[in-house]
Amino acid sequence: MRESELPVKFEPQGKTVFVLHGTTVVEAAARAGISMNMPCGGQGTCGKCRVRLVSGACEPRDAERGLLTQADIEDGVRLACQTCICAPMSVEVPETSVLTSTFQILGGASGVARARLMDVSDVAVRKRFVELPAPSREDETPDIDRLERAVGPFYLELDLLRQMPQRLRQWQFHGTAVLADHRLIDFEEADTTSEVYAAAFDIGTTTLVGTLIDLTTGRECATVLRINPQTSYGDDVVARINLVRQDPAGLDKLHRAIIGEVNSMLAELCAEAKADVHHVYEATFAGNTTMQHLLEGVDPSALGEVPFVPATGRALMLHARELGINIHPRGRVYIFPVIGGFVGGDTTAGIMATRLADATGATVLVDIGTNGEIVVSHGGRMVATSTAAGPAFEGARITFGMRATNGAIEKVLFDGDVRTNVIGGVAPVGLCGSALVDVVAEMLRHGLLMSEGLMLLPDQVPDTVPGPLRERVIIAPEGTAFVLATSAESATGSPVYVTQKDIRELQLATAAIRAGFSILLRRVGLTVGDVDQVLIAGGFGNFIRRSNAQRIGLLPADLERRRISFVGNTSLAGARLAAASQKIRHRAEEIAREIEHVDLSVDPEFQEQYVEAMFFPEEG
Amino acid sequence: MRESELPVKFEPQGKTVFVLHGTTVVEAAARAGISMNMPCGGQGTCGKCRVRLVSGACEPRDAERGLLTQADIEDGVRLACQTCICAPMSVEVPETSVLTSTFQILGGASGVARARLMDVSDVAVRKRFVELPAPSREDETPDIDRLERAVGPFYLELDLLRQMPQRLRQWQFHGTAVLADHRLIDFEEADTTSEVYAAAFDIGTTTLVGTLIDLTTGRECATVLRINPQTSYGDDVVARINLVRQDPAGLDKLHRAIIGEVNSMLAELCAEAKADVHHVYEATFAGNTTMQHLLEGVDPSALGEVPFVPATGRALMLHARELGINIHPRGRVYIFPVIGGFVGGDTTAGIMATRLADATGATVLVDIGTNGEIVVSHGGRMVATSTAAGPAFEGARITFGMRATNGAIEKVLFDGDVRTNVIGGVAPVGLCGSALVDVVAEMLRHGLLMSEGLMLLPDQVPDTVPGPLRERVIIAPEGTAFVLATSAESATGSPVYVTQKDIRELQLATAAIRAGFSILLRRVGLTVGDVDQVLIAGGFGNFIRRSNAQRIGLLPADLERRRISFVGNTSLAGARLAAASQKIRHRAEEIAREIEHVDLSVDPEFQEQYVEAMFFPEEG
Repeated sequence: MRESELPVKFEPQGKTVFVLHGTTVVEAAARAGISMNMPCGGQGTCGKCRVRLVSGACEPRDAERGLLTQADIEDGVRLACQTCICAPMSVEVPETSVLTSTFQILGGASGVARARLMDVSDVAVRKRFVELPAPSREDETPDIDRLERAVGPFYLELDLLRQMPQRLRQWQFHGTAVLADHRLIDFEEADTTSEVYAAAFDIGTTTLVGTLIDLTTGRECATVLRINPQTSYGDDVVARINLVRQDPAGLDKLHRAIIGEVNSMLAELCAEAKADVHHVYEATFAGNTTMQHLLEGVDPSALGEVPFVPATGRALMLHARELGINIHPRGRVYIFPVIGGFVGGDTTAGIMATRLADATGATVLVDIGTNGEIVVSHGGRMVATSTAAGPAFEGARITFGMRATNGAIEKVLFDGDVRTNVIGGVAPVGLCGSALVDVVAEMLRHGLLMSEGLMLLPDQVPDTVPGPLRERVIIAPEGTAFVLATSAESATGSPVYVTQKDIRELQLATAAIRAGFSILLRRVGLTVGDVDQVLIAGGFGNFIRRSNAQRIGLLPADLERRRISFVGNTSLAGARLAAASQKIRHRAEEIAREIEHVDLSVDPEFQEQYVEAMFFPEEG
Repeated sequence: MRESELPVKFEPQGKTVFVLHGTTVVEAAARAGISMNMPCGGQGTCGKCRVRLVSGACEPRDAERGLLTQADIEDGVRLACQTCICAPMSVEVPETSVLTSTFQILGGASGVARARLMDVSDVAVRKRFVELPAPSREDETPDIDRLERAVGPFYLELDLLRQMPQRLRQWQFHGTAVLADHRLIDFEEADTTSEVYAAAFDIGTTTLVGTLIDLTTGRECATVLRINPQTSYGDDVVARINLVRQDPAGLDKLHRAIIGEVNSMLAELCAEAKADVHHVYEATFAGNTTMQHLLEGVDPSALGEVPFVPATGRALMLHARELGINIHPRGRVYIFPVIGGFVGGDTTAGIMATRLADATGATVLVDIGTNGEIVVSHGGRMVATSTAAGPAFEGARITFGMRATNGAIEKVLFDGDVRTNVIGGVAPVGLCGSALVDVVAEMLRHGLLMSEGLMLLPDQVPDTVPGPLRERVIIAPEGTAFVLATSAESATGSPVYVTQKDIRELQLATAAIRAGFSILLRRVGLTVGDVDQVLIAGGFGNFIRRSNAQRIGLLPADLERRRISFVGNTSLAGARLAAASQKIRHRAEEIAREIEHVDLSVDPEFQEQYVEAMFFPEEG
């Protein structure tokens, strides 16, 4: 049985998503790409996430009665964090309720942390339209000095210098100077000051996300998501490092693949935003250490063996042309500093996006992806590590696994039978990582799975399990399996199920993160009870359910649930900040140098913790 | 009649030159490329230019008797500035008598100012041999950060970054870092700290001179002189600017010609010094404004019309690779700042070489070349101008004109007949600029030439002129002419003579410089009597005789002769200083900005002064 989802429409965004009964409006909004302003962390205490339910409103909760007037309530106003969806709904989102700066997300917003509007007061790229006086007998100042007199001193490349005398004369000494730091990037005809863009990229092992930012307003104009084409050379970074080590052309293949895809994304971003790619003057990139090496075309072989040394730890500022990135040919590419080993620029970016360095209480940032990075910030000290979780959370190496796109079962709950939510409201094709977490948590709760991760055989399932669920335990060609969608229900005509091997993959991924989490806490002398906040980052984090993450042991069970927040793709958020702010770049460099990097492979406790974490928690 | 020259051999340099009877040892040394240490300006008062005459010693003068002991004198020790050559001579030059820093030449050394040994304490390029610890589990510092830990922070280009991981591992983390400012230029195998070179170039309209400097010692290793191949496209800068304006491929042709020649010179310099061209990390260039534009490949068209505006006034620091200069591919090219209009980087370099900005008395720097530049420094104020002298001083546009190379008559004097000195001691082919000055001065003295520049016809020559001289006045196919070498004496079988047109060319060149000189003095409120020093720069300056320069009016007749010094190629000397010192580059930039540029074309007095200067002075 597959429940039909409830449509929820958001205005003025004009977006509709389909969600399961009982989903909160905040979660639905996150699905629609809208980050609600929620400094209290969804406790219903700050009243910042006000929305108006045009239709489908249900009774307000006590928290809402305390914060809203009777007139508001009668008008349909509710708090998005307190409102569960129990009918098709139309929601009006006031601008004041939308998260406007990524910096706010440390307060604990659930859902995708997307900066709608950024501060552009500190942007590296600036344009100045100038109307210079033409040279005369009374003013014989050389061409370049003439321009400098108007815009301040700058450095310029030879190819631009060569074009300047003609351009100045052709345009009667009027035009727009494009400056970045103290470089003259270009001198353009007429007044182009309204056309200044930067692109920001998160380059994940599996997924690439790019966004185009209008630097005159700080607005995001377009976003593009792609599968990393390098996945065809290997699912995880280890496979790609091995390719480089074994195939003399391997590095070039991987480098070309990512550069080509980024350029294709840039073209799409510009087309969508109706922007000229020559008006994109900077691109920023955040990714894990290996991905950044492959983007740069730098050999990551030393990352493939003890002691796992990157080529460079510092941030890089490269010429777009030398890297082959198709923005303005004299534009620049910024790549985030690496913290150490596999703790890469994506983590540095995440620290910037969440302002982790400024956190007052003990705060843990967990980026759940193919590579899991964990950072603990406590009293001005920061410690970071990475664990090889594998691609299970991204749906890879799972029998019917897929990314969180249309056709993916993204949510599963058992209520006598299985209820699923499918992205796009279509017949299911497979399941994504969040659904795998759900089904494992529910199987543990219903006694269909033992704590060591072993599925019960069909004839071992106890009678207390409701019949519809018992019937879903089958012997598939791959062995014992649990059916989420029958061949009649699925879009493919074949059933969608979870196998014993899939559960083993999830165990390995979960254990890696959990063990890293434990060791880092111990390093700074904390216990789970001391933790004020856990920030879950990564595309996967958008969809995960806290209770299920705790049930399978991905997060400690004794962590108060209200302390867990989902902060979305902080790598991309950090890249966006760096695109708009020079201070962010400088601060990122400082932080990457100051932070302590813990190499779990040399930690004597890790193996022990890891084996322990392989067991699912006993208590549901 | 052609006098046989006297051979003079210098040791330990091992160089022999041939000179006329009566030439001073200082002049002969200059011809051999040796600059004597002579802070008193050749007055015989400081005693710094001591040499030992192994053979050919004549009686000492009074000045020498006062400064040298009797034992010295008996041993053949003399002062080079006081000793005239009256016999074949062998001269031992002690190291202490050789000019070791260009900075000393402001004191007034005659002859070529060549810095034998430069201060290298402020060199931009430095090498560090490092033996880094290999990465270990206890020290997982990334590769680049590891190197920075040893040599300090640096910026490096992507292509080098890409090579670093492999190089470090292949060489067990040992090697030599090459740094310039805060850039890592290269990382070389083993210890190469003894191999650090820079090249310095003077790029004249007619002549190119390059020199290779060992930056570990400050020693000059090799010097190469070439004709500027652009001369085939036009003798002077105006012709070349016109080519660029008329021929769409003109700029490219001229740019390629100079770059190709510079690269050929670099190859020769390295071959001569047995240096690897990849160990040349910087090249510095000084030239007039047009030449610097053509070197850079920047369109100089705006210099071809009022108000004569250069593309850039500032110093340029370019990548050798982008300019196509074949030194180390990541090496850098420095080009001197331009003062304004046609007063180019060669003048800035000359100001640095002569320390003109620090001169205490009123000092005039005159660079005599195809373009004549004049700078007056007085009481901390500097004023500069340029005049189009034309290539007469370099022997061009003269019927039998040639550069000052083997076969060129370089000196002429009349003593009843004509006595000449030919470079290389061979039969003459033609005459160079200094001989033209000589012959015109002598013709004026002997009444063969009128002050307006008209040669007497053969039948107009007065009887007081000795017969042998009278016979040299002929009617050649070009008109009236004065014969320096008959067809029997010359190497070509044709006579070598000076025509009326040749004299007109010299008049134009002389008048341009003299008028500029007068106007600049007036600008700063000085008269000739106030001038403490006149420094004559330019390759031509090496050979000119002060008395004759004054006789033809190139320099004011009322200037005390002891105030005139020949400082040689100060453009090259400045380029060499910039190759060895960053401070010089910074100071050059300041000076180029501070100095006042006078555009003679807009000066109401110039035309008047110019016409006046066209007349040779009446008084011999």
